Amino acid sequence: MSERLAFSPSEILLLGPGPSPVHPRVLAAQSAPVLGHLDPEFVALMDRVQADLRSVFGTNNPFTLPISATGSAGMEACIVNLAQPGTNCVVGVHGVFGERMVDLCERQGGTVHVVRSDYGKPLDVERMLQTIREQKPGLVAFVHAETSTGVLTPDDEVRAIARATHEADGYLILDCVTSLGGRRMALDDWGVDAAYSGTQKCLGVPPGLSPVSFSDRAMQAARDRPSRCTSWYLDVNLLGGYWGGERKYHHTAPISAVYGLAAGLDLVFEEGLEARFARHVRAARALIAGIEVLGLSPLVETGYRTPMLTSVNVPDGIDAKAVMQHLRAVHKIEIGGGLGSLAGKIWRIGLMGHGARLTSVLRVLSGLGDALQRQGETRDVTEALRMAEAVHDAQDRTDSPA
Amino acid sequence: MSERLAFSPSEILLLGPGPSPVHPRVLAAQSAPVLGHLDPEFVALMDRVQADLRSVFGTNNPFTLPISATGSAGMEACIVNLAQPGTNCVVGVHGVFGERMVDLCERQGGTVHVVRSDYGKPLDVERMLQTIREQKPGLVAFVHAETSTGVLTPDDEVRAIARATHEADGYLILDCVTSLGGRRMALDDWGVDAAYSGTQKCLGVPPGLSPVSFSDRAMQAARDRPSRCTSWYLDVNLLGGYWGGERKYHHTAPISAVYGLAAGLDLVFEEGLEARFARHVRAARALIAGIEVLGLSPLVETGYRTPMLTSVNVPDGIDAKAVMQHLRAVHKIEIGGGLGSLAGKIWRIGLMGHGARLTSVLRVLSGLGDALQRQGETRDVTEALRMAEAVHDAQDRTDSPA
Repeated sequence: MSERLAFSPSEILLLGPGPSPVHPRVLAAQSAPVLGHLDPEFVALMDRVQADLRSVFGTNNPFTLPISATGSAGMEACIVNLAQPGTNCVVGVHGVFGERMVDLCERQGGTVHVVRSDYGKPLDVERMLQTIREQKPGLVAFVHAETSTGVLTPDDEVRAIARATHEADGYLILDCVTSLGGRRMALDDWGVDAAYSGTQKCLGVPPGLSPVSFSDRAMQAARDRPSRCTSWYLDVNLLGGYWGGERKYHHTAPISAVYGLAAGLDLVFEEGLEARFARHVRAARALIAGIEVLGLSPLVETGYRTPMLTSVNVPDGIDAKAVMQHLRAVHKIEIGGGLGSLAGKIWRIGLMGHGARLTSVLRVLSGLGDALQRQGETRDVTEALRMAEAVHDAQDRTDSPA
Repeated sequence: MSERLAFSPSEILLLGPGPSPVHPRVLAAQSAPVLGHLDPEFVALMDRVQADLRSVFGTNNPFTLPISATGSAGMEACIVNLAQPGTNCVVGVHGVFGERMVDLCERQGGTVHVVRSDYGKPLDVERMLQTIREQKPGLVAFVHAETSTGVLTPDDEVRAIARATHEADGYLILDCVTSLGGRRMALDDWGVDAAYSGTQKCLGVPPGLSPVSFSDRAMQAARDRPSRCTSWYLDVNLLGGYWGGERKYHHTAPISAVYGLAAGLDLVFEEGLEARFARHVRAARALIAGIEVLGLSPLVETGYRTPMLTSVNVPDGIDAKAVMQHLRAVHKIEIGGGLGSLAGKIWRIGLMGHGARLTSVLRVLSGLGDALQRQGETRDVTEALRMAEAVHDAQDRTDSPA
């Protein structure tokens, strides 16, 4: 048969909710020669990846590793190992990914008490604490940086929920999909028992792996549970045997994806965690300054905005989808739309990992301004760019990212 | 911080049970620019991958797609969607992967009737048929080509089991991890309801994805089941919404891995399925001719050997592990050892995908001969190579691979 035309994707600037732009070194790493999944060279790389993930998660948990599937499987791994028929669960829901946690707890036979806020509002921490005190749940879960809204839960609130959870003798699961690699994480200090993330956000690596971390206490719970974990693929008792000291064959790790993650982590530590976190904050502040000049406003109130993902309200009379299509078709930029109750009402602009920089901000502001003008709106794009640049440059590189 | 030394893996000839050698075009595809998981260009690629997978699986099943995780997750996907508390299951076990199916059925609350044969022996088809007639199971499962032993179940036996399963009104799951892409598959003709595979065997793509296919009848069962599927990530009702016409966001697909799979499928169809299957048979026959000259014997009886993976008995007095280490260290070749009850008793030599060719055979024969001589055995390596080459060349390229 004749040769097929190879697939040749366009170069799109990925400023949606992920995947984020990938550094050329990470892409190159994914085409390195494939090793066996028990090869001594690969096993040494596994150790290195695990050590690096511990540093970005802010933990000493021995069980810290990339699950061989995407971020959603990390959520599933945390829940299937810690929930079982009859588990009393409290889940904070202020976006789509909180809803998914509820769904997963229910699939394991858990009883779920939902503490709901409107999408775009902060997590209702007071009601979370109260519900935990009342329900004495075995499992508490919420999303650190809600990817569907751009809401971040501040450190002291995470810590307070963890404390209440432990007083109830429960376990806390934290969704760190969008925050990991873009913001200082401190699982051990906060008291998080199980956390998961994805590679395609602030780590700047293509999607495909889900970094997870379980405390020794959570591992003990997974070992001692009376009913078996419904998943074999995600059973932490088995995964620990492969990634841990024994190197017992479990499944065949996705070698190329692990190479990519290792290269992405190299970039993270070459830059330095604090410098990286500060870069995310600077880019987000520049973006918000620029969109305000364009007459747009962020969805989320000050103090709860996650720097890596800014939700922008769609002005009345503007066709949200047409703007996104124009950006993609003409400017070669991807941004995200709203999910669930926010569909058509917001755009989600991600400045994550390699993409969290002024050039991304300037390109998306130009594109947005252009797209709005196509819909008959008059916007001062030049001033928006000037303002974004000024705000960006006014921030010291070593500004605290808090 | 300073630049880190990038990971630079050795070039190892992968002749174990997978991962198999990867063609440079596949590796290059994995470093192409990343697109969003709902990008129109990526969606078009998804369609192409699905159509190609239908062709290699020999099916028209609309639900045919790569699960975003490795082959073991494909097994889990098939079982969690079709087994639930109380499901009566019949599982054929003649190797490690059959055992895993039993484990997974039990985790879903199924009652499992195991039809066991010794590792290395063919599936006991007569007892399978009898047990199915007696038990009237809702689910029947077995492994087409047992990766832990190299035993292949012939087409007519697959068909007979499918017929009995349907007479009992049950569903048949077939593990095609090692067979897909290396042997003619005919899911529709055989009557298989759900099948899964991995990319890292005869498709010649790095590990990371699991092609699966569900018949409409199996999809109906997954839709209508009374209890919910324990997995959200692998729920075919949700996966079908993303990969099917709706393109409803479910999870973020592993973009680079899908690029690699698409490139691997391009190579499969450029070569042609029949030519590819014949190449696997030729390479396996050449290998067996060569190992016999080296005084070694295959584990599996004639008629049940899967061409892509040949298990070789370790002769008395030989240190199996030392041979493997010598091959890896000196000859830069990976082969596999035995699993479970066959640990230390066999080597597993895979000639899969891009690796199923005479050069692989000659290299592994040279290496094996050398390793045996290091343990004091006298072997005629030159004659083994001559014989392998002669047997290889004697086979017409268009030989039937049956």
